[in-house]
Amino acid sequence: MANVLVVHGGGPTAVINSSLYGVIQEAARCGEIEHVYGAIGGSEAILKERFLDLAAYPEEKLKLLLTTPATAIGSSRYALEQKDYEAMTAIFQKHDIKYVLLNGGNGTMDTCGKIHRACKDAGICVVGIPKTIDNDIAITDHTPGFGSAARYLAETVAEVGVDVKSLPIHVCVVEAMGRNAGWITASSALARKKPGDAPHLIYLPERPFHEEEFLEDVKRLYEEKGGVVVVASEGLKDESGKPIVPPIFQTGRSVYYGDVSAYLAELVIKKLGIKARSEKPGICGRASIALQSPVDRDEAVLAGREALKAAMRGEGGKMVGFIREETLDGSYQISVRMIPIEEVMLYERVVPEEYINERGNDVNEAFVEWCKPLTGAEVMEYIDFQDLYQEKREREGGKR
Amino acid sequence: MANVLVVHGGGPTAVINSSLYGVIQEAARCGEIEHVYGAIGGSEAILKERFLDLAAYPEEKLKLLLTTPATAIGSSRYALEQKDYEAMTAIFQKHDIKYVLLNGGNGTMDTCGKIHRACKDAGICVVGIPKTIDNDIAITDHTPGFGSAARYLAETVAEVGVDVKSLPIHVCVVEAMGRNAGWITASSALARKKPGDAPHLIYLPERPFHEEEFLEDVKRLYEEKGGVVVVASEGLKDESGKPIVPPIFQTGRSVYYGDVSAYLAELVIKKLGIKARSEKPGICGRASIALQSPVDRDEAVLAGREALKAAMRGEGGKMVGFIREETLDGSYQISVRMIPIEEVMLYERVVPEEYINERGNDVNEAFVEWCKPLTGAEVMEYIDFQDLYQEKREREGGKR
Repeated sequence: MANVLVVHGGGPTAVINSSLYGVIQEAARCGEIEHVYGAIGGSEAILKERFLDLAAYPEEKLKLLLTTPATAIGSSRYALEQKDYEAMTAIFQKHDIKYVLLNGGNGTMDTCGKIHRACKDAGICVVGIPKTIDNDIAITDHTPGFGSAARYLAETVAEVGVDVKSLPIHVCVVEAMGRNAGWITASSALARKKPGDAPHLIYLPERPFHEEEFLEDVKRLYEEKGGVVVVASEGLKDESGKPIVPPIFQTGRSVYYGDVSAYLAELVIKKLGIKARSEKPGICGRASIALQSPVDRDEAVLAGREALKAAMRGEGGKMVGFIREETLDGSYQISVRMIPIEEVMLYERVVPEEYINERGNDVNEAFVEWCKPLTGAEVMEYIDFQDLYQEKREREGGKR
Repeated sequence: MANVLVVHGGGPTAVINSSLYGVIQEAARCGEIEHVYGAIGGSEAILKERFLDLAAYPEEKLKLLLTTPATAIGSSRYALEQKDYEAMTAIFQKHDIKYVLLNGGNGTMDTCGKIHRACKDAGICVVGIPKTIDNDIAITDHTPGFGSAARYLAETVAEVGVDVKSLPIHVCVVEAMGRNAGWITASSALARKKPGDAPHLIYLPERPFHEEEFLEDVKRLYEEKGGVVVVASEGLKDESGKPIVPPIFQTGRSVYYGDVSAYLAELVIKKLGIKARSEKPGICGRASIALQSPVDRDEAVLAGREALKAAMRGEGGKMVGFIREETLDGSYQISVRMIPIEEVMLYERVVPEEYINERGNDVNEAFVEWCKPLTGAEVMEYIDFQDLYQEKREREGGKR
């Protein structure tokens, strides 16, 4: 009987632990795995041999993985060196670890490829499980973690929209995560139930941001509606590729920028004289279990199971990917395809031009169609007597 | 048959609409009310006679009020003048409105008292329904809206805590609403399942904020834990009563301040050289339906029902209040007491000294005990293999 080791890399999502649960489930099902080790504290934990046998815990405890945000085994941003990779084969052999599963984003997949090359001759099979809220991994249709981040933002922006509409005296700028890829920002469009609903403006990092156009749009919408909801990516840049927020200060090689949302709210107050405020849910959005997407969670479990299966088939150096199937009735369906890590590493996937409107202040219906199934739930239905009153008046006005 | 009018004032909560639902329910039950009018757009809507008969909508639509955030009939911050109050009696009489229910915070209760005085001789009965996330209304044990805001913050800070712990490389400052009263900020303490859990530091506006002490505390905790979660009120002030964030700019009589959370994160980076980030869920927190407190919702419905009952008994000029009962088994129980509006208007209720620790960086167990029942749900349970690994090592170390 061989052992499997699961390692988490990089920032958390709402469903990494669901993938871990999938691995444990598959290990139990196949009957060929003795221990499912978790590396306690990311890739660094491999070198320190900080391994815990997870499958030894009772099922009722393990089930909590499905609703535990972030990572239950810890992660790290430790940068591995060549000597670290060389040391790993001996460590894996010492613990009878034949299968190594790395769960993470682009950076982790790079590590995954390197461990694979260092250990494959020793018969150790290394497979990647994709994970990132940013959805910027290439080739796969989408990544576990994104659907939940998308659902969180859509539901939250819908709620903020109702809040702002009920007391329409200001502009509200909500900041979304995703510095280079605007997938999460774009998903806020799912908040809309009907035309005119929030968000009223959506700015992705894929397009240069023009302050004058932004102010024009805000002014027009404010005069029309009173309350305006803007969703802006944390990574907005100007025409020259510079962040729109001036740097606050620099220490060593790190430059610190202020928040895009606070910056834009300030701009509205200063330049337009309109009351404005900003919200920045930030990591609250990637850790929310209440707004976890059930589809995302199920797919994360699937990714974990398929990763172990692939490792046991000897498919090292690959990552679990999702292919969206064409179905006769148009319903959502995915299949799993193992993607060679080198192909994944080729580029960072951003939101394609075809999903963004001409003025660069919204996404289109094609994006919404693509994104909706991943969130696994419709945005909640509300009752709006303000609209019903307006409709009634228009009906009565029409009768006269 | 007489009519009742419901008016919403000020900022939204997650359960104002539940109180509205309670009024509609009670009106149907008692059989003595013909129309339940909603004032569409706050107190201003009274003068403009923007009234909509809400009870005319089907029950399945009305039920959505329980899960619709903000206010379904709209609100306003319109400042009524003496002539407005004088004009109201005639308007109410014209629409056969005998009962007027105002739902809001301290400002709205003031309006409520003034409308009562202006209309009582005409036999119109005006009653207040308390509502504010800030929980700063006097005499009543707590206000509808607070329990949900508290649950949101507790659950969110617990999730942020797990996130920060899983990749413990920074200090995370979460900003909480409540400029003068720290009730919401304090409720973040409910996030803790065991000693050492986030939040690690809690700063209320009731105490002057000392930057040096804050930096000392953060440094110590960072060295101990790596990841530190701080919850700070948006209204923190220094010893002299000045906001700790310097004003960004001034237009007319309005002074604009930056965000406390961003300011404190910047301070940590600049003064301690530790990575820090800030989250400001802001109005996302008062509008969240997923984290609405079921107890808060039920009590909001009760407040609406009791307000109409009181109005029909002729108890004008009063507000519905909650008294917490002493029970033999210590279980949570409230009773309703009608409180004269003038008593309510005497002061803004802040967090009492007895709930705050000596250093002013935390609240105590007595506060947690007081607050817990209002949130209506335990913070979710997680599995933490990092802790389990630590325990295992300590056990094994002990055996040797």
